[in-house]
Amino acid sequence: MRALDIIIRKRNGEELTQGEIRFLIRGYVDGSIPEYQISAWLMAVYFRGMTGAETGILTREMIASGETLDLSGIPGPFVDKHSTGGVGDKVSLILAPLAASLGLRVPMMSGRSLGHTGGTLDKLEAIPGYRIARDSGEFRRILRETGYAMTGQSEKIVPADRLLYALRDVTGTVESTPLITASILSKKFAEGAESLVFDVKCGRGAFMKSLPEAEVLADSLVATGRSLGRRIVAVITRMDEPLGRMCGNFLEAEEAALCLRGDTAGRGDLMEVTLRLTAWMLVAGGRAGDTAEGEGLCREKLAGGEPYELFLKNIAAQGGDPAAFEKGLGRLRSPVRRVLTSPRPGVVAEIDAFMIGSAGVLLGAGRSRTTDPVFPHVGIVLHKKRGEKTAEGEALCEIFAESGSAADGALALCSDAVRVAPTAEAPGSMILREKAAL
Amino acid sequence: MRALDIIIRKRNGEELTQGEIRFLIRGYVDGSIPEYQISAWLMAVYFRGMTGAETGILTREMIASGETLDLSGIPGPFVDKHSTGGVGDKVSLILAPLAASLGLRVPMMSGRSLGHTGGTLDKLEAIPGYRIARDSGEFRRILRETGYAMTGQSEKIVPADRLLYALRDVTGTVESTPLITASILSKKFAEGAESLVFDVKCGRGAFMKSLPEAEVLADSLVATGRSLGRRIVAVITRMDEPLGRMCGNFLEAEEAALCLRGDTAGRGDLMEVTLRLTAWMLVAGGRAGDTAEGEGLCREKLAGGEPYELFLKNIAAQGGDPAAFEKGLGRLRSPVRRVLTSPRPGVVAEIDAFMIGSAGVLLGAGRSRTTDPVFPHVGIVLHKKRGEKTAEGEALCEIFAESGSAADGALALCSDAVRVAPTAEAPGSMILREKAAL
Repeated sequence: MRALDIIIRKRNGEELTQGEIRFLIRGYVDGSIPEYQISAWLMAVYFRGMTGAETGILTREMIASGETLDLSGIPGPFVDKHSTGGVGDKVSLILAPLAASLGLRVPMMSGRSLGHTGGTLDKLEAIPGYRIARDSGEFRRILRETGYAMTGQSEKIVPADRLLYALRDVTGTVESTPLITASILSKKFAEGAESLVFDVKCGRGAFMKSLPEAEVLADSLVATGRSLGRRIVAVITRMDEPLGRMCGNFLEAEEAALCLRGDTAGRGDLMEVTLRLTAWMLVAGGRAGDTAEGEGLCREKLAGGEPYELFLKNIAAQGGDPAAFEKGLGRLRSPVRRVLTSPRPGVVAEIDAFMIGSAGVLLGAGRSRTTDPVFPHVGIVLHKKRGEKTAEGEALCEIFAESGSAADGALALCSDAVRVAPTAEAPGSMILREKAAL
Repeated sequence: MRALDIIIRKRNGEELTQGEIRFLIRGYVDGSIPEYQISAWLMAVYFRGMTGAETGILTREMIASGETLDLSGIPGPFVDKHSTGGVGDKVSLILAPLAASLGLRVPMMSGRSLGHTGGTLDKLEAIPGYRIARDSGEFRRILRETGYAMTGQSEKIVPADRLLYALRDVTGTVESTPLITASILSKKFAEGAESLVFDVKCGRGAFMKSLPEAEVLADSLVATGRSLGRRIVAVITRMDEPLGRMCGNFLEAEEAALCLRGDTAGRGDLMEVTLRLTAWMLVAGGRAGDTAEGEGLCREKLAGGEPYELFLKNIAAQGGDPAAFEKGLGRLRSPVRRVLTSPRPGVVAEIDAFMIGSAGVLLGAGRSRTTDPVFPHVGIVLHKKRGEKTAEGEALCEIFAESGSAADGALALCSDAVRVAPTAEAPGSMILREKAAL
């Protein structure tokens, strides 16, 4: 078998066999196939795509390139959620203890912020003392104790994905649905999840700007999951304005805590997405017959307070200080403050999530390069969400920064991001499409 | 400027600027851009193509990557011919002295055989003592003395082409018209040719199997030449059966000599192609108003014997022994001989050029790998060409080999290649299309 022939077959639009895909992935990981052949193949995949069967094989071969988390001995069902990335997206922090309180086990391997979208790990680490599980032993212990555990991607898990992603990043082959699909699924299945619920974000604050694009990815995730014999749900949700009212690392951990404690007023968008995704996890995990039943179970549990207790228990299990966290609520804010006020009376018609996310990067809540540090206490609080009335001079949003120049830059971006109009349509449902292979 | 952005622009189907193409080629040659980015770009070019302007820029930048032959002080016009490769194609050996005898200067940089197609340099080196010009001083001297000179591609000329070709060869990006165009044109213009006539071979013995494919390449060569302000003619000629009656290195040098001496009976296909291409060279070089006039001039010169004298003079100038060559005519044949006889009476309906070329490789007339040696005196003589009558048992072709096993293998291939039928259509004109930018 020669890499050249496999490249040419893909270039000509033919379907590759399991043997061919295995040969390429193994050869790339062991160094016997040079990067220039893999990058030519990636570009051919960009243009020709992959069938569901090919994407499934690629996913499996990528998983086989490294270790997988062994969750044996821990009772399941293991269900995880993955978001394609948005602004203000702290859903995982609410959903994980909520799902755990309802009997699911959530082994969660998350990422860090890059670009305008946030990263769950950065938000968690803004909690005093919190650190992500450093090895599988710790991960298993935390998962057993609190029903969910948080870790980052280890070097040992799916090394093929790290290699391929680094190469795609410099060869213009990132935006390929089958490659994105295999990258996401391989990591999630390697962490031990049996079922997966995807939050495919769609809108100006997301990687997928339009519904057709988001549907292509959602369909690919579901079809590939099915070809691998796993339960997969893909929910396409709106990402035009930031989710919830708080953007920033500690701010988002704080907003998650508020929601878990029942302070959900004005956070309808965040709760709608969180409840629907958790409900689908319950359906996929066999704990609810449909999402209506699942959402009902979620509401009951939230009212009982158990999810918030699990949240604090997880903080402690992951090395954090629940008391310091609770004491910091409303207080852990960077010192330089700016307020954007409304230039006119009216209704907030638009809050551009991409611009707010960019303001967050400018403040240091996120990163433009993977090596940039993040500041835990910077961020933006939205005093008005889309559809809410404002008087002239009323605060639209509030910025917390580490420096005056960053604060001013973020203020200018926020000022461009928020549009106040005489009237505005009421925001519709956050849920655009739901696709499931159960 | 970043290579990644250039890859993405090409991937998205945008037209690259001169600055971008220059950045890529220079960066590749100086090692600052890694091969994995160039190969991704090549695959994007494979799918998206290039405009005439882009191909012109690429050609120019490839030329600029190395030295160019300095022909100053030698009176022009400098006109060269290039063939995309066929079987039995000894046109250059006849055309070069013929064009030189008519006042053109032919600086010819040729290649070696690879695969089923022959290489002009291998044919020339079958002439006792003949060696290709080793440096530009020698090349200039021979060109001045005999009106044409023969050399191979130097390491210093168009290094970008060697690098790019080696990469294309292992990444499935050989079959890209703009890349083929720039590769051919850069080498030809770097050798000092002002005008170029292309013989784009078409048929089962050629790289371009169909007329539409051949037209795409011909159009690209002409359009790119025009964008570079050069005179370019592309003649698409038939390559279904071998050209002429002899295939092999010395055998082809011999057949060229026979044609130059007026022994052209039964070689109508070879002479038709040679005269038309030479006539176009005269038109491109301003020595004839049209091809009819050019062909008339060629016939006159051939009748006068001067082209053959130049041929012998060039042999001497290139270190060869004209007397030994003439003494070898009809004699320098490998010792193991086989004759393919006709199994039935009829007309030769087909002589598959690809199979005859493959038989030649098997005999050692050509190479399957660039490092293979070639045997000068092996080959195949076609006693019958397409459209000629044969009796049962009459010789169809004769094989000269260095070993019995090679002879038997070649005989089997020739037996499959030649088809005798009760009747056959008369072969039509060899010239399928002519395209010119003058």
